Amino acid sequence: MLGAMQDWTMRVTHVIDHAAREAPDREIVTRWADGSETRTNWQGIRTDALKMAQALQALGLRKGDKVASLAMNHSRHLVSWYGVAGMGGVLHTVNPRLFDDQLEYIVNHAEDRVMVYDAAFQPIVDRMRDRWTTVEHYICFDSGEHTTSFEDWIAAQSGDFQWVAGSERDPCMICYTSGTTGNPKGVQYEHRSTVLHAMAGLQPAAFNFSASSVMLPVVPMFHAASWGLPYAGAMAGIKFVFSAVNDPAVLHDMMLKEGVTDSAGVPTVWLAHFQYCDANGIDLPPLKAATIGGSAAPKFMIERLMKNGTRVQHAWGMTETSPIGTVGGPTHDWENLSLEERVVKTMKQGRPIFGVELRTVDLDDNTKVLPRDGETSGALQIRGPWVVKRYFKAEEDAVTEGGWFDTGDVGVLHPDGTLQLTDRTKDVIKSGGEWISSVELENAAVGHPAVAEAACIGMFHPKWDERPVLFVVKKEGADCSDRDVIDYLADKVAKWWLPDAVEFVDDIPHTATGKISKKDLRDRFADYKLADG
Amino acid sequence: MLGAMQDWTMRVTHVIDHAAREAPDREIVTRWADGSETRTNWQGIRTDALKMAQALQALGLRKGDKVASLAMNHSRHLVSWYGVAGMGGVLHTVNPRLFDDQLEYIVNHAEDRVMVYDAAFQPIVDRMRDRWTTVEHYICFDSGEHTTSFEDWIAAQSGDFQWVAGSERDPCMICYTSGTTGNPKGVQYEHRSTVLHAMAGLQPAAFNFSASSVMLPVVPMFHAASWGLPYAGAMAGIKFVFSAVNDPAVLHDMMLKEGVTDSAGVPTVWLAHFQYCDANGIDLPPLKAATIGGSAAPKFMIERLMKNGTRVQHAWGMTETSPIGTVGGPTHDWENLSLEERVVKTMKQGRPIFGVELRTVDLDDNTKVLPRDGETSGALQIRGPWVVKRYFKAEEDAVTEGGWFDTGDVGVLHPDGTLQLTDRTKDVIKSGGEWISSVELENAAVGHPAVAEAACIGMFHPKWDERPVLFVVKKEGADCSDRDVIDYLADKVAKWWLPDAVEFVDDIPHTATGKISKKDLRDRFADYKLADG
Ligand SMILES: Nc1ncnc2c1ncn2[C@@H]1O[C@H](COP(=O)(O)OP(=O)(O)OP(=O)(O)O)[C@@H](O)[C@H]1O
Ligand SMILES: Nc1ncnc2c1ncn2[C@@H]1O[C@H](COP(=O)(O)OP(=O)(O)OP(=O)(O)O)[C@@H](O)[C@H]1O
Ligand SMILES: [Mg+2]
Ligand SMILES: [Mg+2]
Repeated sequence: MLGAMQDWTMRVTHVIDHAAREAPDREIVTRWADGSETRTNWQGIRTDALKMAQALQALGLRKGDKVASLAMNHSRHLVSWYGVAGMGGVLHTVNPRLFDDQLEYIVNHAEDRVMVYDAAFQPIVDRMRDRWTTVEHYICFDSGEHTTSFEDWIAAQSGDFQWVAGSERDPCMICYTSGTTGNPKGVQYEHRSTVLHAMAGLQPAAFNFSASSVMLPVVPMFHAASWGLPYAGAMAGIKFVFSAVNDPAVLHDMMLKEGVTDSAGVPTVWLAHFQYCDANGIDLPPLKAATIGGSAAPKFMIERLMKNGTRVQHAWGMTETSPIGTVGGPTHDWENLSLEERVVKTMKQGRPIFGVELRTVDLDDNTKVLPRDGETSGALQIRGPWVVKRYFKAEEDAVTEGGWFDTGDVGVLHPDGTLQLTDRTKDVIKSGGEWISSVELENAAVGHPAVAEAACIGMFHPKWDERPVLFVVKKEGADCSDRDVIDYLADKVAKWWLPDAVEFVDDIPHTATGKISKKDLRDRFADYKLADG
Repeated sequence: MLGAMQDWTMRVTHVIDHAAREAPDREIVTRWADGSETRTNWQGIRTDALKMAQALQALGLRKGDKVASLAMNHSRHLVSWYGVAGMGGVLHTVNPRLFDDQLEYIVNHAEDRVMVYDAAFQPIVDRMRDRWTTVEHYICFDSGEHTTSFEDWIAAQSGDFQWVAGSERDPCMICYTSGTTGNPKGVQYEHRSTVLHAMAGLQPAAFNFSASSVMLPVVPMFHAASWGLPYAGAMAGIKFVFSAVNDPAVLHDMMLKEGVTDSAGVPTVWLAHFQYCDANGIDLPPLKAATIGGSAAPKFMIERLMKNGTRVQHAWGMTETSPIGTVGGPTHDWENLSLEERVVKTMKQGRPIFGVELRTVDLDDNTKVLPRDGETSGALQIRGPWVVKRYFKAEEDAVTEGGWFDTGDVGVLHPDGTLQLTDRTKDVIKSGGEWISSVELENAAVGHPAVAEAACIGMFHPKWDERPVLFVVKKEGADCSDRDVIDYLADKVAKWWLPDAVEFVDDIPHTATGKISKKDLRDRFADYKLADG
């Protein structure tokens, strides 16, 4: 060696060690399902994680073994993120909203040996127990009514433990996609990818975490690593406020009481919060920053948050990308922009953070790379250290030559690097050889004062192949006609994009992650016929 | 493989690729030594770096070869940071303020094959040319008067080049310490350490870089990788404003004209700027953030910047740590603190950013790890991925068991992780078996309205071993007596710390990096005797 820097294996344990050492007293507050509250801190989380790692070893678990969690957001769930990784294990965060068949498939596929779960999900455990063939031990986060309680379980350990060492390419977490088509697919996050993703997530252009941040993440810890917040937050030593229930009244109360500055969730979560405030005639919470992702953030949502003095971070990503790909926030010309200009900019999905790289290719010929001209839309591909190469147990890589992963999304890249997502490959509507963005139609429609939710799908048309039909749920007590909606859209989208029909429905189906399920909507209206179709 | 994330080699070329792709038009402005100005952008920097890499290969340079730069801050110097690394080479940033013997030693020790230099340093080149035995080619950044000009040299290339690939542990830069004792020592920064250091440097607790940042770094590109700013800035796609001269009038002018939001420099640089503003009866520039490091930031400096609305980031680090170790900025209780409390907090050196770890050990027994109690001071040690393991060409590692590097600094660690630097191991004054901090005495003394600069060293004392003597340079036109200074210090430090004598001098010697040179001061006063000594 002619001279070098120190060796340092990028392990997730460095993250919790850092938080416990540099921000030991910074609080982690939990509001539990039963209404009670507990407070711990980074030091406490680390101590409990050490005990949990010991307790797992005592059960016979070894490096590479998988532990499932079936839980909402709370401090004990957080302990398990670090405890399992610290034992060299892999945490499988199971989405409790999945169907039984999916729950069976993913737990068995992952070969989970231990399951830690919330008492609220006891019915799921009771129902699935016989079908989960690999699970040897059940631990309940809240109580010992039906099985060992988490607190008793770890209390039996001393916490005198050395984190299990290993390669930085070892997995530390596995998340499954929700499987809107076929079986869910497992994505293994590595120690290295997790640390890099969190380091990138800290930056001002992304979560902008500093010591003074107080974050209440509404995005669940069981989906896409909760956008990496529990890792990035630990790196910056922020205060976390968790709520095990997603009731807006509870969230609102916690936000005010605990001085919450930052929150993150999918659009429907923000929508529910708006509705709660409106119904009670109260102001939105005084948040400094709101991250919206998982689906496109509609215009009125961005505008309302900005008017509230809240910075909006519009993030795009997916389970396969750990999940942060792009984040939209203030651009360098921000101070010279009007509110309207800021809102319109933020409606796009932002720019890739250092580490990941995007490109678009032709929808019909994926060897043709498209220009970043702000106009041409194509299939969105991504590559980088926190992007999946191969799904868990898959026979082959999920990437093309050059290491690109196809996202299944359709978008436009702008010359300044901004991504504008227009649709999903499978939802885009092809009319007369041209593409119509179902997402843009939906987002325009929800701006109408009487529209609560809207979903657009393509329906067969003998002349145009497909034409858009818009399904609308009206706001409670509000009314409007199909003509009203079409008129409203008229100056917002191209004329030939206007839906051929507007259908009013009582509800729109959602996926396990709270997004509109076009697949279910298509199934429900399989026999639908256009008037001129 | 059971499923994994993508492979991604952490190379510095990803940084410039990212900047050129995601912030192609963000400007890089240079104010040259002759008063002229040029403007390029990240896209332009990358194109020129590709050409430079080609031009180096055309000269016969290969992977691992070293290229020296002898230059101030400007866009062409920046090009060479990425061009050399992109060719697989190692850039050796030479400090032009070193003595000839040191210049000879380091260039030959590094075995630099090419030297790129500013016309302003032509005298150094002329003087040293025969002594630099390994340098085969000289390229001048500004003109072709004496040798090939940089612009002509790279203009001969097409820029159609693929970055040279390699391991992430390959070196990409080498910096030498200024060698206040013995020969300078070379520290090799690796691609990996550089990327990690820059990712960490982006965060709100450190440089807080976002798309809207406009940074004028006064810290030279020839010292300690300019604190990593050229890398972190590229990751965030910030605008850079460089000045090839450090005249405060020029810096001030550029700051106002280019909308500079951030600057960084050692305390003397900030002091010179204050004096310029005072002499001309003008306000400080409206900076959002000022990073001060390299020496302790004195109280009045922090206070004045804060009153100006500027956030102060007080950074500690060294060539051996890439260099960022800790940064002091807003803590989580910031909003509840008075200005005075904020100033006092910021005088400490801040907290380690994720990646590095600190501890203190007993000054007399370095196997004894000291508590983080905010009181016990000891020898400061550091470890992490961007901390040196072995100096270039050294026979053995520079770290102790457990991988700790001894910084040569003395400090106190507080329970909340804050580092308070009290002195250097070799400057600390031992009086009657107790330690006195020379730095604290100096920093208190410069608060006196008549004191321009102060340096404190220990002088032999028959009873106490050593007693502090304070050397003071008075401000132009100001006057004070030794009694005045002692009286002023009386309520600022412990009584037994008060200097035994205050000596007024015309100047205090400085090192090549602009810091007080205690070694030279001690040499100058080698025959000094205390009155009762
Ligand atoms: N900001 C955004 N704007 C628009 N769409 C988004 C945004 N963020 C995420 N998405 C959509 O969500 C997808 C990622 O979904 P995610 O991985 O979180 O869930 P999943 O379990 O794979 O379920 P599904 O893909 O079926 O929604 C993206 O591919 C994209 O289509
Ligand atoms: N914020 C700070 N407060 C006090 N001292 C600092 C601070 N930052 C850096 N220093 C001092 O500067 C040293 C690092 O110096 P650096 O590596 O930049 O230069 P060098 O070439 O090694 O020269 P020298 O070590 O002789 O000053 C640290 O070890 C510490 O003593
Ligand atoms: Mg998906
Ligand atoms: Mg040094």
